[in-house]
Amino acid sequence: MLYEINEKALKLESEGKKIIRLNLGDPDLETPPEIIEAACHAMKSGKTKYSSAYGENRLRQKLAEVHDVKPENVVITPGSKWGVFATMYSILKGGGTVIIPTPYWTAYELIAKTVGAKVKLLRTELENNWKVDPADLAALIDKETKMIILNNPNNPTSKVMDAETLDGVVEIANERGITILSDEVYGAIAFTKSKSILDYDGKCKHILSSGFSKTFNMTGWRIGYIIADKLLVDTITKLNQITINNVPVFIQEAALKGLELRKQLAATIEKEYRERAEMACKILSTDGFSFTKPDAPFYVFPKKTDLDSEKFTLDLLDKGVAIAPGTSFGDYREHFRISLTVPREQIKKGLKIICEELE
Amino acid sequence: MLYEINEKALKLESEGKKIIRLNLGDPDLETPPEIIEAACHAMKSGKTKYSSAYGENRLRQKLAEVHDVKPENVVITPGSKWGVFATMYSILKGGGTVIIPTPYWTAYELIAKTVGAKVKLLRTELENNWKVDPADLAALIDKETKMIILNNPNNPTSKVMDAETLDGVVEIANERGITILSDEVYGAIAFTKSKSILDYDGKCKHILSSGFSKTFNMTGWRIGYIIADKLLVDTITKLNQITINNVPVFIQEAALKGLELRKQLAATIEKEYRERAEMACKILSTDGFSFTKPDAPFYVFPKKTDLDSEKFTLDLLDKGVAIAPGTSFGDYREHFRISLTVPREQIKKGLKIICEELE
Repeated sequence: MLYEINEKALKLESEGKKIIRLNLGDPDLETPPEIIEAACHAMKSGKTKYSSAYGENRLRQKLAEVHDVKPENVVITPGSKWGVFATMYSILKGGGTVIIPTPYWTAYELIAKTVGAKVKLLRTELENNWKVDPADLAALIDKETKMIILNNPNNPTSKVMDAETLDGVVEIANERGITILSDEVYGAIAFTKSKSILDYDGKCKHILSSGFSKTFNMTGWRIGYIIADKLLVDTITKLNQITINNVPVFIQEAALKGLELRKQLAATIEKEYRERAEMACKILSTDGFSFTKPDAPFYVFPKKTDLDSEKFTLDLLDKGVAIAPGTSFGDYREHFRISLTVPREQIKKGLKIICEELE
Repeated sequence: MLYEINEKALKLESEGKKIIRLNLGDPDLETPPEIIEAACHAMKSGKTKYSSAYGENRLRQKLAEVHDVKPENVVITPGSKWGVFATMYSILKGGGTVIIPTPYWTAYELIAKTVGAKVKLLRTELENNWKVDPADLAALIDKETKMIILNNPNNPTSKVMDAETLDGVVEIANERGITILSDEVYGAIAFTKSKSILDYDGKCKHILSSGFSKTFNMTGWRIGYIIADKLLVDTITKLNQITINNVPVFIQEAALKGLELRKQLAATIEKEYRERAEMACKILSTDGFSFTKPDAPFYVFPKKTDLDSEKFTLDLLDKGVAIAPGTSFGDYREHFRISLTVPREQIKKGLKIICEELE
């Protein structure tokens, strides 16, 4: 329902209605001007031609340096979603099962189904601080299991996995010979730092998916990357060659500029979202919702007992506030996801309407 | 071998070697400054967010006007190659056979195989002016046949299909209930005008794939489009939602600017390539090659009796000229493809080295 809500919100806006958009992880903050300048400069320097389906060498090298891997382990993708799709397409096309902890980003299951894989969901609960139980995970694994998807920090809960839990998950995956795809797209701007999947293994046995959208307010630019062993990087590159060909070089130059300035840019973005999260938590606390405090941008995923979140979401859209129903993230009918990706005044206004609607 | 040659040429260049790049359909001409300005302006106006997986309304409307269809028949894709992939993925994923006339653009067969479709090739010959024989086509069709791919004008021959042949092909497809995917990416700048697949049917029974790369020197920008019935447009949009999400809005704005200026821009580009083609044909004529005169940019596909085109291509790369072997376009071992996508002096120099090598 996530995409339908968004298309409906866009349609209402195109008809002149004002919608407070708390439904998407699309930051209101502008792409930093240094990044835009880098893109314009590159375009004007003629960087408008076909290029390598692996991505530009300079960007791969810089990412290799940031993540302490080799450039041959990096492939640039048009958005991290493409990276997830290309990875799942490469590994699961011939069949197999993927295990996904819930609540989860809808796209994982949609991608799994479209590439012909089976999905097993591993439920986590607000009441247990959204922790994955390694024993539950182990019980789901069978001989068809080819992949475990982690989203760390998680969308929609904004929780990071604690080191002990992640250690446990990696140990099970290693024992059973299963690949972990760890989507860490919110990692660089998390408030609570955690381990990355790359911390476990210098040889890229598992797979990291990440991107520039969230770290640098570059959602609409469509640039991300996969870090994996060379074999998978080569396989994804072959898929790139027959599909998207390459990410525009001027966009890769813009991303490179972001990486060069990452300490200062990421710190500013992290601070802004931390303050927004604190504000939102304060408002929600006074109104009797259950929720966990976010460890990362951009989401809060509150629960209200007996809520029908789909009906609630549609009613709320008529009142000018777009959110995402909990059912878009698994079997979480009593939850809804609020994205803190609009200015504070609008967050306040949106939360006020939400609270009124639920009274 | 097309991609391998290109990656090898890029590698040699990165090592400081000078390569005359006659291997790719990537124009040396710069993207027109009006288009670059439109992109920079859009970026600076904040058009850097997620957007609709259908594409921007204004661009869809403009393309609908250009092609005399409805906006609901248009979906914007990150390059026309993605449009071809998404179409084939949508129609052939469950199996089936696709018929492709040869010589053909390598990507069609690679895509067909990756989505699990069978391929039947329909050979055409230089000696018959590269004409598709509708009777041969009819003989290849069986109950598994789901799609016929046309590339009109053709890569690598640069021939357009004459109206009578296209009429015959469409008639057979309609009789047998088979969808035609017509890739017309070179159509807007062809020297010899021909019919489009859209001329046959106001209801988009068949499918047009096209893009901005060739018409506006925008290869590296990755923007194209599919025109099809609403059902397929919706299906491709759903695939977009779980893969590439959207083409960057600032790139769509740039493409829109190109369309607005298309008469003047396309005429300039067409004239330049017509003159290059005439020059190349003159040189090749004096050296005993067989070839047909191009009807469109960018290629000539000459034949030299008893040539081993793969060996020839690799030897030539060592001499600093990149071309594409005929075997990259089907069973055409005696042929090779020259792209006229470098300045005239380089074309002359490259052709001189080619002629010397073959003496």
